[in-house]
Amino acid sequence: MLPVAVDAMGGDHAPGEIVRGAILAEESYGIAVTLVGDPERLAGMSNLEIVPSSQVIAMDDDPGVSVRRMKDASMVRAAELVRDGKARAMVGAGNTGATMASALLRMGRIKGLKRPAIAAAIPDLVTDHFTVMLDVGANAECPPSLLLQFARMGAAFARERFGCTRPRVGLLSIGEEASKGDSVVKEAHELLDQRGWQDAVGAEFLGNAEGRDLMGAQFDVIVTDGFTGNVALKGLEGGMSAVTARLGKVFSDTAAGRKAGAALGDQLQALYDQINPDLTGGAMLLGVRGVCMIAHGSSNAVAIASTIRLAAEMADHDIVARLRAAIAD
Amino acid sequence: MLPVAVDAMGGDHAPGEIVRGAILAEESYGIAVTLVGDPERLAGMSNLEIVPSSQVIAMDDDPGVSVRRMKDASMVRAAELVRDGKARAMVGAGNTGATMASALLRMGRIKGLKRPAIAAAIPDLVTDHFTVMLDVGANAECPPSLLLQFARMGAAFARERFGCTRPRVGLLSIGEEASKGDSVVKEAHELLDQRGWQDAVGAEFLGNAEGRDLMGAQFDVIVTDGFTGNVALKGLEGGMSAVTARLGKVFSDTAAGRKAGAALGDQLQALYDQINPDLTGGAMLLGVRGVCMIAHGSSNAVAIASTIRLAAEMADHDIVARLRAAIAD
Repeated sequence: MLPVAVDAMGGDHAPGEIVRGAILAEESYGIAVTLVGDPERLAGMSNLEIVPSSQVIAMDDDPGVSVRRMKDASMVRAAELVRDGKARAMVGAGNTGATMASALLRMGRIKGLKRPAIAAAIPDLVTDHFTVMLDVGANAECPPSLLLQFARMGAAFARERFGCTRPRVGLLSIGEEASKGDSVVKEAHELLDQRGWQDAVGAEFLGNAEGRDLMGAQFDVIVTDGFTGNVALKGLEGGMSAVTARLGKVFSDTAAGRKAGAALGDQLQALYDQINPDLTGGAMLLGVRGVCMIAHGSSNAVAIASTIRLAAEMADHDIVARLRAAIAD
Repeated sequence: MLPVAVDAMGGDHAPGEIVRGAILAEESYGIAVTLVGDPERLAGMSNLEIVPSSQVIAMDDDPGVSVRRMKDASMVRAAELVRDGKARAMVGAGNTGATMASALLRMGRIKGLKRPAIAAAIPDLVTDHFTVMLDVGANAECPPSLLLQFARMGAAFARERFGCTRPRVGLLSIGEEASKGDSVVKEAHELLDQRGWQDAVGAEFLGNAEGRDLMGAQFDVIVTDGFTGNVALKGLEGGMSAVTARLGKVFSDTAAGRKAGAALGDQLQALYDQINPDLTGGAMLLGVRGVCMIAHGSSNAVAIASTIRLAAEMADHDIVARLRAAIAD
């Protein structure tokens, strides 16, 4: 089995947490991992295979410029390993735009697709349902025809990732009625409402979704442009961080709070893990000719390991072929 | 002192909770209230003054059409009371678009302003800071010059509402750098970055804000179009509802959980109240020539009372004159 290529230099806690995550993935899930990065900095940290690279794209570097100029950057090399059939997937926690650009420029785009999208999975906290939202940041502006392509890919992804047999698709807007939203959304609604693509892809368009549906169980896929999706996703992450901090005060400020916190330790930890964006397995770049998973910059080893596992799983599902079929159908 | 006009027929729990909220506002805060609605349905519910109206605009009626056709609708009559100097503010929990259209058509727009905006206040859960976000739904599409007007109004509102002496203003985007965002946001960034309006209004533009800043304390005002703002606000509300439901399970599923819940009763109630969107005092329509507060459709009596109090407070601050000055400066 081909290894998963991991950008060992990307992320707030690179390379330490990245390498520890890779070791954890190998030990816990039996997934072979190739680290890509500076051999001197990675020396002695693990027994994993290392593919050397001499450059690192920083978090605040311009994605397009840096990927074109830094041909020996770790994330560029990781993308090349996938392109060249030496790795089955790549995982990166570094500069999101540059990771995406590396994958797009080195692997290329699925035929017929206008632009790739980043898909994130948002947990419904009460059931075990996840809602796939895309795009969450690859494209600030999306014409209606691109939103339709996102719906096609999102449905295929929800099927492989979460086993939805007939994914329920929504279009993010500001009201349930088809008349709500800006001109792009109204036009996209008309396209999404056609039976043709729904039958071809095996999906069902339920109409407009609203912000409150993101953390819910009514939709399997919610489609939006990368501007709105990014703001909404980061908004939810910020909200969950705020709640976690606030609960921390409840369980530390008073003696009664500390006692209750101790009694509920496991249950609270489960809740914190559920709403901690570092632990939800990363987002996936849909539409390039290879598996590319994007982990949070703040990922710890556990988050990296779960992202590696998900990358391997999506490669096993031959997700690229599924997405290609969903676009072509 | 003039009364606050309350649309007694609007909201999921109208007229019962609305009337109880009005009574509560009068008893708790000493604010005179005039109820507007069907005299037969309101008979015997309170000793408050009633201004009769024979029509009710439903939650799913088209705002523009219904306000033009239903001239005796309760929210239209409430707006007329403000226009005619018979009430110092109006409060409605009904159809948001129709409440807004009633205020706009009956009171008119502040001179020089292109379009009014709806401003919501989002709590930072750990400190007592609130961030004003606008627009949260009045205008799906906003050109850069309108976003600048929102920044001017938002700053004036944050000063009157929360006492910010020099409001820190951010532009909602998908990255901190000025180069991030769609074309409208990039152009708006350039406008907002000019010193002229900041000095005139007494505000400070800090640059782009991101989704995670909405529930934070770094900005006093975050400016965005009504599409993004609506999705982000409803996203946060949905997230807070999900967390509340999930916490409910922690404190009810096991004996240890129930015991801890009982021990922490007051603190948990305070947290729930803090993240319950029904209780945060409603949103304000900025830019019409009168005070118009929009409460959540699901508002209970407590939420209505706090919205009435806020409406009276904003009228006391002569907020319309402040907004007019902020636009003209």
